[in-house]
Amino acid sequence: MSVIYNRVALIGLGLIASSMAHAMRRDGLAGEITGTARSAESREITRELGFCDAVFDTAAEAVNGADLVVLAVPVGAMEAVAREIAPHLKPGATVTDVGSVKRAVVEAVGPHIPEGVHFVPGHPLAGTEHSGPRSGFAELFENRWCLLLPEPGTDRAAIDALAKLWRGMGANVDEMGIDHHDLVLAVTSHCPHLIAYTMVGVADDLRRVTDSEVIKYSAAGFRDFTRIAASDPTMWRDVFLNNKEATLEILGRFTEELFALQRAIRTGDGDQLHDYFTRTRAIRRGIVEAGQDTDAPDFGRGGTR
Amino acid sequence: MSVIYNRVALIGLGLIASSMAHAMRRDGLAGEITGTARSAESREITRELGFCDAVFDTAAEAVNGADLVVLAVPVGAMEAVAREIAPHLKPGATVTDVGSVKRAVVEAVGPHIPEGVHFVPGHPLAGTEHSGPRSGFAELFENRWCLLLPEPGTDRAAIDALAKLWRGMGANVDEMGIDHHDLVLAVTSHCPHLIAYTMVGVADDLRRVTDSEVIKYSAAGFRDFTRIAASDPTMWRDVFLNNKEATLEILGRFTEELFALQRAIRTGDGDQLHDYFTRTRAIRRGIVEAGQDTDAPDFGRGGTR
Repeated sequence: MSVIYNRVALIGLGLIASSMAHAMRRDGLAGEITGTARSAESREITRELGFCDAVFDTAAEAVNGADLVVLAVPVGAMEAVAREIAPHLKPGATVTDVGSVKRAVVEAVGPHIPEGVHFVPGHPLAGTEHSGPRSGFAELFENRWCLLLPEPGTDRAAIDALAKLWRGMGANVDEMGIDHHDLVLAVTSHCPHLIAYTMVGVADDLRRVTDSEVIKYSAAGFRDFTRIAASDPTMWRDVFLNNKEATLEILGRFTEELFALQRAIRTGDGDQLHDYFTRTRAIRRGIVEAGQDTDAPDFGRGGTR
Repeated sequence: MSVIYNRVALIGLGLIASSMAHAMRRDGLAGEITGTARSAESREITRELGFCDAVFDTAAEAVNGADLVVLAVPVGAMEAVAREIAPHLKPGATVTDVGSVKRAVVEAVGPHIPEGVHFVPGHPLAGTEHSGPRSGFAELFENRWCLLLPEPGTDRAAIDALAKLWRGMGANVDEMGIDHHDLVLAVTSHCPHLIAYTMVGVADDLRRVTDSEVIKYSAAGFRDFTRIAASDPTMWRDVFLNNKEATLEILGRFTEELFALQRAIRTGDGDQLHDYFTRTRAIRRGIVEAGQDTDAPDFGRGGTR
């Protein structure tokens, strides 16, 4: 691969940004990578790990001369960062972000982007439950989707260059509308996370079942939930505060269906339960066929019984 | 390892029974393994795969002369099987089961067990989303827990032999009271499964989000849910019908907490969300430290963002 951007600035040095740095370096996609983070500790760790060519104390310094600026901070911090960097952006540069909600980011960042700078919001659908600059690895985006969400009229060359970067880091790239994105993600990511957080919280509250038992005998359903619920609290707080409408709509549907199943359990309606459980198998097959997951038995993690 | 039971009869030839057969054969734990299943297809597949020494058309034939009888059928089918095999059980034999709920199984099976036969209920906390005789593999129980739930006064030698068999197949063995088991499992397994089924059902219902998008962009939270929700519908129907009380109690707590979080989202209470999400991280750490899961990034599956 050849260099796509001479200088890339990473604002925020967590899982996504550090993984981007590792992937860009592996494939020679960036001439130079600068970075900054609000936390002095994250900046220090990044200097120690060496995945940026230069680490600055402020975002204003980090974006100086950058051809691509990546906003990789929690959604709630996007506006302050955009305001800070705006006067320092190089004409012709591209600004992107990696936030999990998009309408709120576009409203927070968009107004600060100066004439002559391209804004192409993005969302890589990749992650682990780990966070911080030590958690990154070059393979994170391998065969994952990265969604780009440019407003109509955005410079096509700027979009294409960013898509090329993501493809270079191993991702598949697609474009989508902002509001549709927020609804799809509410279904596939935001609500499942809230539900997992809740179930893990219930287990924690239950005094008759000791913590050690919940942990020791955590069967697979619950173990998957704890992995999901271990994700970064600040990032997820901001997701829910900033995708309120879609999240609440999906949660409303969720509780409605859950109540119907609870009622079937209470009344002993086995047919309704069986029909429901049979229907959900088809979605799983679709996902395996779409290549988003493997069909292999899950040795290390213990499965779903 | 040396032979623990000269003859083991597997009633039901699904994931658990076939995995037991593979594990017993690998380690030479059983002199001979017989099997039966209600479905002619399952019996035929088992004959073809050859993991039983003999496959019979009826449970009565299969248990003939067996030192250990394993009931590995859905919980709702336990009573009929127990009634059928009772007159054919060898004096001194042990009957066990692998059902995911225990009070209901003890009430269904216990009364049919003749004098001189030992009944030691069991529950291996292991599985995958696959089912049927083709889905078994010898490593399924490796480092998983198997709970034994004998009533007070059960023959100690019978319990110890069964524990030795499970340890021989790679499992860790613990004993627990029946009702406590049903509550712990409602928290760690049954409710998480129902919730996963529900969320996958919601996604399927949502007409504005096309199936292909939900599948294509299924971020990790949802992908884990679909894996959980792909488990055997009959087994899970029987779990919920037979662990009604504990399941409904935990679901009640779950919806209560979910409503509190929904309210925090609606009112924009970021502190409450952040506190809640921070608390759930500790449970995850406990599980990783207890060795029930690995801390490694989840390369193949894409993680939790």
